[in-house]
Amino acid sequence: YILSEDDDMHTPTLFTEMDTLQREGDELEWKETARWVKFEEKVEEGGERWSKPHVSTLSLHSLFELRTCLQTGTVLLDLEGYSLPQIIDDIIERQVEEGMIPLELREKISFVLLRKHRHQTKKPIHRSLADMGKSSSSTSELLGLNCCNGYALHGSKFFGVPGHTQSRSMNNIAETPSPDQLKNKFMKKIPRDAEASNVLVGEVDFLNKPFVAFVRLAQATTLGGLTEVPVPTRFLFILLGPQGKAKSYNEIGRAIATLMVDDLFSDVAYKARDREDLIAGIDEFLDEVIVLPPGEWDPKIRIEPPKKVPSADKRKSVFSLNEVGQMNGAAGGGGGLSEDEEMPEQHELGEELAFTGRFCGGLYLDIKRKLPWLPSDLYEGFHIQSISAVLFIYLGCITNAITFGGLLGDATDNYQGVMESFLGTALAGSVFCLFSGQPLIILSSTGPILIFEKLLYEFSKNNGIDYMELRLWIGIHSCLQCLILVASDASYIIKYMTRFTEEGFSSLISFIFISDAIKKMVSTFKYYPINTDFKPDYVTTYKCECLAPDPGEFTPWTEFVWRTGTSYLPLNVTALDWSQLSKKECLKYGGSLVGKSCKFVPDLALMSFILFFGTYSMTVSLKKFKFSRYFPTKLRKLISDFSIFMSIMTFVGLDMLMGLKTPKLIVPTEFKPTRSDRGWLVMPFGKNPWWVYLASFVPALLVTILIFMDQQISAVIVNRKENKLKKGCGYHLDLFWVGVLMAACSFLGLPWYVAATVISIAHIDSLKMESESSAPGEQPQFLGVREQRITGILVFVLTGVSIFLAPILKFIPMPVLYGVFLYMGVASLSGIQFWDRIKLYLMPSKHQPDFAYLRHVPLRRVHLFTLIQITCLAVLWVLKSTFLAIIFPVMILGLMVVRKMLDMVFSQHDLAWLDDLLPEKEKKKDEDKKKRKEKEKDKKKAKEDDSEDEVRNVSLCCPLLEYWILNWCLL
Amino acid sequence: YILSEDDDMHTPTLFTEMDTLQREGDELEWKETARWVKFEEKVEEGGERWSKPHVSTLSLHSLFELRTCLQTGTVLLDLEGYSLPQIIDDIIERQVEEGMIPLELREKISFVLLRKHRHQTKKPIHRSLADMGKSSSSTSELLGLNCCNGYALHGSKFFGVPGHTQSRSMNNIAETPSPDQLKNKFMKKIPRDAEASNVLVGEVDFLNKPFVAFVRLAQATTLGGLTEVPVPTRFLFILLGPQGKAKSYNEIGRAIATLMVDDLFSDVAYKARDREDLIAGIDEFLDEVIVLPPGEWDPKIRIEPPKKVPSADKRKSVFSLNEVGQMNGAAGGGGGLSEDEEMPEQHELGEELAFTGRFCGGLYLDIKRKLPWLPSDLYEGFHIQSISAVLFIYLGCITNAITFGGLLGDATDNYQGVMESFLGTALAGSVFCLFSGQPLIILSSTGPILIFEKLLYEFSKNNGIDYMELRLWIGIHSCLQCLILVASDASYIIKYMTRFTEEGFSSLISFIFISDAIKKMVSTFKYYPINTDFKPDYVTTYKCECLAPDPGEFTPWTEFVWRTGTSYLPLNVTALDWSQLSKKECLKYGGSLVGKSCKFVPDLALMSFILFFGTYSMTVSLKKFKFSRYFPTKLRKLISDFSIFMSIMTFVGLDMLMGLKTPKLIVPTEFKPTRSDRGWLVMPFGKNPWWVYLASFVPALLVTILIFMDQQISAVIVNRKENKLKKGCGYHLDLFWVGVLMAACSFLGLPWYVAATVISIAHIDSLKMESESSAPGEQPQFLGVREQRITGILVFVLTGVSIFLAPILKFIPMPVLYGVFLYMGVASLSGIQFWDRIKLYLMPSKHQPDFAYLRHVPLRRVHLFTLIQITCLAVLWVLKSTFLAIIFPVMILGLMVVRKMLDMVFSQHDLAWLDDLLPEKEKKKDEDKKKRKEKEKDKKKAKEDDSEDEVRNVSLCCPLLEYWILNWCLL
Repeated sequence: YILSEDDDMHTPTLFTEMDTLQREGDELEWKETARWVKFEEKVEEGGERWSKPHVSTLSLHSLFELRTCLQTGTVLLDLEGYSLPQIIDDIIERQVEEGMIPLELREKISFVLLRKHRHQTKKPIHRSLADMGKSSSSTSELLGLNCCNGYALHGSKFFGVPGHTQSRSMNNIAETPSPDQLKNKFMKKIPRDAEASNVLVGEVDFLNKPFVAFVRLAQATTLGGLTEVPVPTRFLFILLGPQGKAKSYNEIGRAIATLMVDDLFSDVAYKARDREDLIAGIDEFLDEVIVLPPGEWDPKIRIEPPKKVPSADKRKSVFSLNEVGQMNGAAGGGGGLSEDEEMPEQHELGEELAFTGRFCGGLYLDIKRKLPWLPSDLYEGFHIQSISAVLFIYLGCITNAITFGGLLGDATDNYQGVMESFLGTALAGSVFCLFSGQPLIILSSTGPILIFEKLLYEFSKNNGIDYMELRLWIGIHSCLQCLILVASDASYIIKYMTRFTEEGFSSLISFIFISDAIKKMVSTFKYYPINTDFKPDYVTTYKCECLAPDPGEFTPWTEFVWRTGTSYLPLNVTALDWSQLSKKECLKYGGSLVGKSCKFVPDLALMSFILFFGTYSMTVSLKKFKFSRYFPTKLRKLISDFSIFMSIMTFVGLDMLMGLKTPKLIVPTEFKPTRSDRGWLVMPFGKNPWWVYLASFVPALLVTILIFMDQQISAVIVNRKENKLKKGCGYHLDLFWVGVLMAACSFLGLPWYVAATVISIAHIDSLKMESESSAPGEQPQFLGVREQRITGILVFVLTGVSIFLAPILKFIPMPVLYGVFLYMGVASLSGIQFWDRIKLYLMPSKHQPDFAYLRHVPLRRVHLFTLIQITCLAVLWVLKSTFLAIIFPVMILGLMVVRKMLDMVFSQHDLAWLDDLLPEKEKKKDEDKKKRKEKEKDKKKAKEDDSEDEVRNVSLCCPLLEYWILNWCLL
Repeated sequence: YILSEDDDMHTPTLFTEMDTLQREGDELEWKETARWVKFEEKVEEGGERWSKPHVSTLSLHSLFELRTCLQTGTVLLDLEGYSLPQIIDDIIERQVEEGMIPLELREKISFVLLRKHRHQTKKPIHRSLADMGKSSSSTSELLGLNCCNGYALHGSKFFGVPGHTQSRSMNNIAETPSPDQLKNKFMKKIPRDAEASNVLVGEVDFLNKPFVAFVRLAQATTLGGLTEVPVPTRFLFILLGPQGKAKSYNEIGRAIATLMVDDLFSDVAYKARDREDLIAGIDEFLDEVIVLPPGEWDPKIRIEPPKKVPSADKRKSVFSLNEVGQMNGAAGGGGGLSEDEEMPEQHELGEELAFTGRFCGGLYLDIKRKLPWLPSDLYEGFHIQSISAVLFIYLGCITNAITFGGLLGDATDNYQGVMESFLGTALAGSVFCLFSGQPLIILSSTGPILIFEKLLYEFSKNNGIDYMELRLWIGIHSCLQCLILVASDASYIIKYMTRFTEEGFSSLISFIFISDAIKKMVSTFKYYPINTDFKPDYVTTYKCECLAPDPGEFTPWTEFVWRTGTSYLPLNVTALDWSQLSKKECLKYGGSLVGKSCKFVPDLALMSFILFFGTYSMTVSLKKFKFSRYFPTKLRKLISDFSIFMSIMTFVGLDMLMGLKTPKLIVPTEFKPTRSDRGWLVMPFGKNPWWVYLASFVPALLVTILIFMDQQISAVIVNRKENKLKKGCGYHLDLFWVGVLMAACSFLGLPWYVAATVISIAHIDSLKMESESSAPGEQPQFLGVREQRITGILVFVLTGVSIFLAPILKFIPMPVLYGVFLYMGVASLSGIQFWDRIKLYLMPSKHQPDFAYLRHVPLRRVHLFTLIQITCLAVLWVLKSTFLAIIFPVMILGLMVVRKMLDMVFSQHDLAWLDDLLPEKEKKKDEDKKKRKEKEKDKKKAKEDDSEDEVRNVSLCCPLLEYWILNWCLL
């Protein structure tokens, strides 16, 4: 079929409406019974409402009848029509000319076709209530059905008065759409340039053979109230037939309507030159049609629209290749052949990671790539979704800042405390978000850095070296090393990180998040021990008294001074009223606490647990709420977007209501370094001997590796192709700023910052965009991420000003924030293929979801792959728990080595599905294709890898290894 | 088509297997690629596994090609075949005879067709591991594919040796199935009488036109390893064709395989006399086929099998009526006409409630109906499901017994306490379960009875009448009244209870359950107040001391005696060590408690909340677990069945682990009346004046109404047709036993018992049976309820012996049981249509589920109906909270009056969908049909009700009422 190939002209989308002829009281009228934008919506007769959009299931019979109708009926293409009566006149004229209908029926047919049209419109409840009141007077009008007054109402009965004057007065209504049409909210669902096709079917008693007409107007014209919405009509299909076969006519109407909204057939209909073109279009449609056997499907079930339909272009190309569309059951029939065609898309890191070979070549390209996006990076941030993202990430960031700040303070004797942590986060984060290559990445303190600082502080304390100065020099060295890495395009090596490595890293980080959240929760139980022996009746025996120390044991003054450490208050200890002292005071002044209740703190632990678990589970439920049936889509989306905020608010509210003294978020309120003996600026010289400045190169190297791995792997995860990022990434630029910020932070004595995987993933998740579904029933598609710099900058600015927000923040209990942490960890796990594969272990194979890789890789091999990943993770987890944690990011390199070894266990085919291929292999293949003749031997070897079956054999080289691993796991 | 009409003979189910010819190394072999029991399962080539069962989507093209194949190919019907080689010989013979293939191809074709068959079998992981080890030696065998050794392996290559001797030695394998076939677990999924149809398709290089054969054997024969399972083959379809069109052949193979499992076509295939019959069968199939437009559906999506498919008989009848199957979109095309056909099934209470008019007629029928079931009532109880049901209901019952026992004890000064409650529950329950008409009903104390007892006790105390004796006489009178009601078949009036009344009652009871559970939980917070001002640091200031009363205020001896009430211990109060006393002792001896912590009890309230909420949510999650993908179906079902037990165990465990003194279940351990001054038997005479014996007739009347309504409405709910009970019910018999037990309980001084709605529903829910799905992909159907007497009897026997179980039961915390209560309430709400309709308020109409009534009744009317129900419930709820609670069941009569009034607001059509029609209306209709001529006027009126449109008008009579009601709600 040639017509469909010259598709230089775009045809408009068609909106199809089917009206059937029905008798309402004594009046005949056309009543809308179904409509199509892409899927069918039917008027539920009894329910007076639109059905859900569904796939039109047709009967083969009706399609054949339609074909016959078009063969025998009138086909008028490019008719010059300006009003319905004129068009109908033209049609009847033609039919009379061709001798298909006798002249005397002319008027009758015309009369019937010009009856008024009644549309099913959706009305708000208050309007339908008003109608209810009205309609009590005129009972003949159906409730909720809105009569379109397109044509004047003729009260006279047609069938009683055969010689009735023709209702030509009807065409006085202009082409301007009626108010009801304009008010119709359904218009929003129809594309702007759409045209309408109207299908009119009905049975009348004066015909003895069907009257069929298919009309294409030369210009799309608004034909009064013919269509529900003010969309100009282009096509008109009319089927009037003898009585008794209403159902059959209906089916034919549905068939042509379905055809009209089919992308290919509508093309054909627009371009058809004659009747034969249309028939050929139907035949083409029939050839592509999907058939369900009647015994396996109930035709009454309405099929929900699928997530995705094949695009028209694809169908066209399939057809032009003269191949029958491949049915789901048919794949693999060719045995191996068809599989190679279906190889998954290759892992593409894009040109961002190409090795330029020039000095700063990568950095230059990064800047060149990102600069044009800068304006849009700013204005695209203004969206309601950004608010929820900012709140969510802000809370995550300050919790992180407080946690790490507290830990750093402990580790470094408050040289870097919570205050420094806040300030550093704000500074580094906002600068990074403003200038970096990938502003979706959130900088934060990370575990390895914390451990490094701890070891460093201990080292310097033990060796009498000034910690801050040493740290400054390490920072400077590390910054220089980073810049060297940037200048030499070293980031290109992360090309060798495949899904295996990424997943290993990110799930490990997620597990750490989860375990940290739970650990914190458990520590609450230790911090606020519960008195499990408490018997309500013996409340009288529970007390805690502060007893004065034995006066004989110490001379009051010296002992007191020694105990309090810093303060030298001239207090007379013996004069104290010991029973009035608080617990802390008592211990401070050397008293001892005696009593059953001293060790215990009531309620707080359990309340903390309720807050923690409540926040987590409420967030999870609200996130899921997007998929529930309740409330309109927009509201649901809002609830889902703000789920974390709403959960936090709820449980902060609950906590305030209970009024218990749960541990609250405490942010520093004064702008000064945590330790009073340090200033805001660290001087580079003076405190340490000169060789320390040079020797700090060595620890700096470790820090550089730490930072490089941590930063770049997070960046790879953020830039994953699943996230559909459009503005490109900038690995070199990112590393540049991380290096610069490191030096800056070192000078200011602030902690060092690097990309935080989990928070960055949370950031991306909270900024995901979905298409607003256009045609009813079409699934919203994931469009990408709102890539901009505003949310990041706002988060860090807020973090900076948190010092002033302390009065508000102090209401937030810590367990609520731990709940948020837990959620972040769990959420970043879901969606990882590795996690899906772990779940497969628990599913019997018949219940497993239809993942693409399961269709192509044997389950055993999938399980083996997962098992190796789990083993790697377990090893990493154990290592992380030892002092080796400091070289943790370096261990990622170990993962990459394991991945390299997997090439020996798995075939390239399996790896392509489960993982990605390593670049060398791809390169090798490319080379093979280019230089076929060269390197005979090498090629032969590579070719072996290529061929499907041979690869299987290769994978069998290590069956014993495989056997051993699997057995080891089962034991 | 005539053949399908004489269906006196039942045709066996067909199992279809499709094998395709594939080259494995240098060998040709037939490899199984798909199979059908009812739905298609495909071998995932790469995944080496069976796909999920799905609906076979065919291409129209392949169906037409198949039709052509059958027209041109060889069709051999009723061939006498005993082995594959002989059958193949016969086929080739025929083809050669007809000149369709040249003689020289004979051997080649035969050779190809006799190649070995390899089946895809599912193996446990350890076997596939063993295979893995083996296969390392012979790399040509594919992993996981189990070679069927049906035919001897011929190592020689066919294509290299054209003149090869024919492999006739193959037929030495007997008809006995191979061990691999017998081991195949898939056999369980195939019906016992099934026969196989084998489809063999493949491409060969020596043919230039297709070789097609369709064979029906005279006798189904096991043809060696042809079929995956040891099922005898009846049909054989062979398609060999020239190379290059493998996909097309595959599709044809799938088409014939799908046809063979179609109920109607397989009938045709069994009965076909000639080729034309088969062709006609295909045409018939094509006529019924469901067509999906290619633009609205992606053929790659595998369609999940539907919940239900139209039965073959229905399809047959539709076809014989010469009507095209009605498509989902087509309904309502006839405008009102088609709707009347689709009226919902009528509410049927069956002959159980027919008014016999004879003395004890109903009772006699009940006994006659139930007696034959008695043996099965006993042995059908032995099932694993019963254990979980017994445990669940037992816990519900004892919780109820303790709760009501406690409340009754309070209300009657312990004349009836927890002990009596236990004993009564056990006695009444087990007798009822043993002899009643509906043993699924669980007897329990109910709220109205409790209130009645309370009022009665107060009355008798104030008027100096002996309570126990009065109660006995009321019991006797009430019993007699019940017996009169039984004798006069009075239960027939509950016919007038429609869904409206049932739903109102049962949701009210559910709400009471839920609110009680929550109230109890809240009261825990009052009972164990939390000290919200507690500051951990000031632990030293929290104490509670017992201070001795001021010695000047009272003379120690008298005052002490007065305060303690009963005991006259000669204790010297002044000599007490007041600080050592417990709270209770302190108050007992007149001390006063002073201190900040006296009023508070730490941790217990929060712990109770965690236990309560945890039990509830864990039960809900585990119940839902049945629908998850994890674990095999059986395990999931077990988890779901035992969900309540597992939750209780978990949280009892947690409670024990924490060791907190949460309130525990306390059952009496000694067998004696709660009040020491009453015995086990109440004497009827002696304590009250004679007129009391007669006057107690009046309160007895109230009790009778209470009991009658409470009992029978619960019975109606239990006997709902949705529960698919098969053994009938026995309203009269039930009432008889309730009456008798009432008298018995009165004599023993035990509480009165009546059917408990919520626990009975829970009982039924825990005994629901589902069919084990047979064909892969078929949905399990709800079969009914395990109707037996064992679970009920066990529950009450256990309740009786609970006194001895106290050491175990004392570990169960009360909040856990409140959680179970909450679950019971919520679970009995779900599944009520009323509840579904309430949810509709929150859903935008496009997201509403496709309920049948929504297709037929306008949403406004549905909402209005729901609103009226909500209003009624609210009124009942308010009344229940006042002293009117005593006439609560009488208010159900009020609901029935409201329902009667609804006839004026709603049309009969709407009511038929939303509710059930009242019996008069039905009767009237019946009368109308019978005596058309009689009562002209009455008939006319009734007819108005009948006609659809007129009914609408009737419903419009009260539009203002409707308007007012809806507006009132919106405000």
